[in-house]
Amino acid sequence: MPWLNQIKWNVDGLIPVITQEFDSNQVLNLAWMSKESLTLSVKKGYVIYWSRSRKKLWNKGEQSGHKQLIKHINLDCDDDTLLIKVEQIGGIACHTGRHHCFYQKLQNNKWITTYGVLKDPKEIYV
Amino acid sequence: MPWLNQIKWNVDGLIPVITQEFDSNQVLNLAWMSKESLTLSVKKGYVIYWSRSRKKLWNKGEQSGHKQLIKHINLDCDDDTLLIKVEQIGGIACHTGRHHCFYQKLQNNKWITTYGVLKDPKEIYV
Repeated sequence: MPWLNQIKWNVDGLIPVITQEFDSNQVLNLAWMSKESLTLSVKKGYVIYWSRSRKKLWNKGEQSGHKQLIKHINLDCDDDTLLIKVEQIGGIACHTGRHHCFYQKLQNNKWITTYGVLKDPKEIYV
Repeated sequence: MPWLNQIKWNVDGLIPVITQEFDSNQVLNLAWMSKESLTLSVKKGYVIYWSRSRKKLWNKGEQSGHKQLIKHINLDCDDDTLLIKVEQIGGIACHTGRHHCFYQKLQNNKWITTYGVLKDPKEIYV
């Protein structure tokens, strides 16, 4: 597919993906995709990342139900970063049970936790 | 500085940085920071990345005047990605002369350019 080949995959065959909630515009998380995971995501209509730690496809929300339904996929000027706008099912993108992953804020030379969990991870991953 | 040491720098000593416009919530670009560039950014109040291609500090906007003034710095749950909210001076973050870098949109298996340049790069980089 020419559109896949336009992407400049890194030395590990991956591209960073910024995932943003389409209605709130909140940036939810940064993750990575391989050619296979991007192809599958487009086909299925929801986000499937590549897990660099587990070295396998990461079907986000498979266990928790918190899938990310794809609204738009955008590519940057250098063809090496994706921005995907999604509907976040359940309103929880973070494995800590929070809406998004960027809840630590730099304040007076400390990382302050800006808000608490919406759902206990023990209840999410049963 | 303990807050710097909490960050999980990658094998190259870098962290990916998502830069988002604080008023519009538009994601402007993805770039990278070293410990030195993050320290300098915090000190100066505007964004200084690490250029992976040029292997040196990248004082964004130094030539164009399109600096990114820092409003907030957030760190994700895994301590390995930054989200920085900025005021984008001149309204142009992309080297192509566009507001942001994510102007290519996937549509019918093609990357469509969704909008044009606001300013000719030849006028930006004189």
